[in-house]
Amino acid sequence: MIVHEQEPYNAEPPRAALAEHLITPVDVFYGRNHGTMPEIDPQAWRLRIGGLVEHALEFSLPELQQQFTPVEVTATLQCAGNRRAGLMAFRDIPGQHPWGAGATSTARWRGARLSDVLAACGLGRQVTDVAFDAPDVAPEADPPQPFGASISVDKATAPEVLLAWEMNGEPLPTAHGAPVRVVVPGYIGARSVKWVGRIAAQDHPSENFFQQGAYRVLPADTDTARTHPGDGVALGPVALNSEILTPDDGDEVPAGPTHVAGYAFAGDDRTVVRVDVTTDGGATWVQADLDAQPTPWTWRFWRARVYVPPGRVEITARAWDSTAAVQPEHPATVWNPKGYINNSWPSVTVTATPTAAGAHGSYPR
Amino acid sequence: MIVHEQEPYNAEPPRAALAEHLITPVDVFYGRNHGTMPEIDPQAWRLRIGGLVEHALEFSLPELQQQFTPVEVTATLQCAGNRRAGLMAFRDIPGQHPWGAGATSTARWRGARLSDVLAACGLGRQVTDVAFDAPDVAPEADPPQPFGASISVDKATAPEVLLAWEMNGEPLPTAHGAPVRVVVPGYIGARSVKWVGRIAAQDHPSENFFQQGAYRVLPADTDTARTHPGDGVALGPVALNSEILTPDDGDEVPAGPTHVAGYAFAGDDRTVVRVDVTTDGGATWVQADLDAQPTPWTWRFWRARVYVPPGRVEITARAWDSTAAVQPEHPATVWNPKGYINNSWPSVTVTATPTAAGAHGSYPR
Repeated sequence: MIVHEQEPYNAEPPRAALAEHLITPVDVFYGRNHGTMPEIDPQAWRLRIGGLVEHALEFSLPELQQQFTPVEVTATLQCAGNRRAGLMAFRDIPGQHPWGAGATSTARWRGARLSDVLAACGLGRQVTDVAFDAPDVAPEADPPQPFGASISVDKATAPEVLLAWEMNGEPLPTAHGAPVRVVVPGYIGARSVKWVGRIAAQDHPSENFFQQGAYRVLPADTDTARTHPGDGVALGPVALNSEILTPDDGDEVPAGPTHVAGYAFAGDDRTVVRVDVTTDGGATWVQADLDAQPTPWTWRFWRARVYVPPGRVEITARAWDSTAAVQPEHPATVWNPKGYINNSWPSVTVTATPTAAGAHGSYPR
Repeated sequence: MIVHEQEPYNAEPPRAALAEHLITPVDVFYGRNHGTMPEIDPQAWRLRIGGLVEHALEFSLPELQQQFTPVEVTATLQCAGNRRAGLMAFRDIPGQHPWGAGATSTARWRGARLSDVLAACGLGRQVTDVAFDAPDVAPEADPPQPFGASISVDKATAPEVLLAWEMNGEPLPTAHGAPVRVVVPGYIGARSVKWVGRIAAQDHPSENFFQQGAYRVLPADTDTARTHPGDGVALGPVALNSEILTPDDGDEVPAGPTHVAGYAFAGDDRTVVRVDVTTDGGATWVQADLDAQPTPWTWRFWRARVYVPPGRVEITARAWDSTAAVQPEHPATVWNPKGYINNSWPSVTVTATPTAAGAHGSYPR
């Protein structure tokens, strides 16, 4: 793992490790934390659901497991800071981790539907948002506070949103939110609150720092010394994005036909329908083959065979979604003060060494 | 109106006319037709619903109006060819109309929910798509055939999809599909089939030319002499887009602070959250004020005050949606053989004449 910070723990897998599995193994799954991981006694743990509900309820883990039909959803989580390094290469973003291609991973999550649990409590008609609170205190928050988030009631009552206690067929590990985490497929990872302890049905979004003060996209020219809670765009559904995982940036490859592969991901309600790859700065593009998507909530792996001439070559990709929208080209366009949602075209630069075939003047395309 | 073709009738309002009303008057609403408008006797007209349903049903207009609760939905329709002229300026697209900024309009539609009508028929469990057939024969189709389309059953059963007989409080005019048209908010206009006569519940998309052979985005390098039905990406939900309506392209304006306004539209399940305007080629951007959106299904009008220096000045805008996705910059990126979904950054070029204030050396910013 590439460890950005030990405490709180922030780490991502290298490209090669991420590329190996459509379903990311637990020990390769990225970790994004704002505070020290809480060690929760699963016997003592209770989930409390309150706010604008008919019956405030409380569940132990066995009660949650026994009173609701468990379902499994395979879903990709993607940190809003994924690929921030590409923005920082354009203009620095002090105080933020330079996440690369790997602040995203995919797992099989199993748990109760949040909608079933909310239905058991009887949601009030005036509910617009459902808020999650966790015990992990984030010193970076202003003021320091436990992590929290909220999602719209429409999303909260959608069948894909889980209170998960299993990950890839095993009990959820502490590092990923044991005993129970929220999993909000198609949304930025920050909304899938780990170690969830309290859920509140509200008529307004969460007032937590990570809903009101962070995970918001501010215009590039914002004076960040003068921002207020609520400024900028609160992030929810994930924007269309993609990365190249093979070859890795800086790799040496034989010149000639080269295998290029990666992931593309379109959040909530969109799918990836096409990925193009260029090795000549966009003059020509090769259409990649798209792997099957296990569920509508996961990334899509893609692969292409492209011609790489000898020398230093930049390989660039771009993905298209089901509305025929394409990723924006430049990091300059999407740069923002906190460095969220870098969905500009991904590139890796390789050095291609001449081969015996090439020495005779013919590189097969 | 700017008339691209008299027969079949294809026309769009000029920018200034479109800018005047958030709800577009009927006589300004764009018209996009593939065949001669049918004159239908409303007394004789029947809507037939069949396919994979428990009861195939047939409704006269009064039956439709009396048996289902009428609802009103304010929704923007946008032709997939809207803004094609911007693509053609980059590379010609023979045989297609050079639509400008005006192949999009907004109206108050009133009618029965398609979902209610389908529920009355009893949708089969195996239904994946709902197809619409109209009587207007399109000579351009291969082979020539009446217009048709389909949408997914999920969209067809969503509450915003109507069988509409009223437009802006008046009976639907022939030019917009009388006696009844489909209105599919958030989707390209081609799916809102006018003069609908038959609806079929199916386990596959419509095989109509306009679903399988047109309204599909092909890669730029496609050999269009060798395409087959089903190639490319079938269009449904509208991609994030925007236009500048004020000033008009080619206008003369006084140098100095200038009012710039236009529309932005994010299709199905997305909203426009920000619009930026630049007059210096993107070095600096001014954030526009966003008008209220009458419903989630309409465009969003925006307005900004920007500084225009004397001379020939290009004014460019870009919109952002609720995932923090931004429009792609260049028409070159999105150019495709049929010229659909030009959602690259819109621009107008104005000539700014020096003012008395400017003659004294100070243009207020």
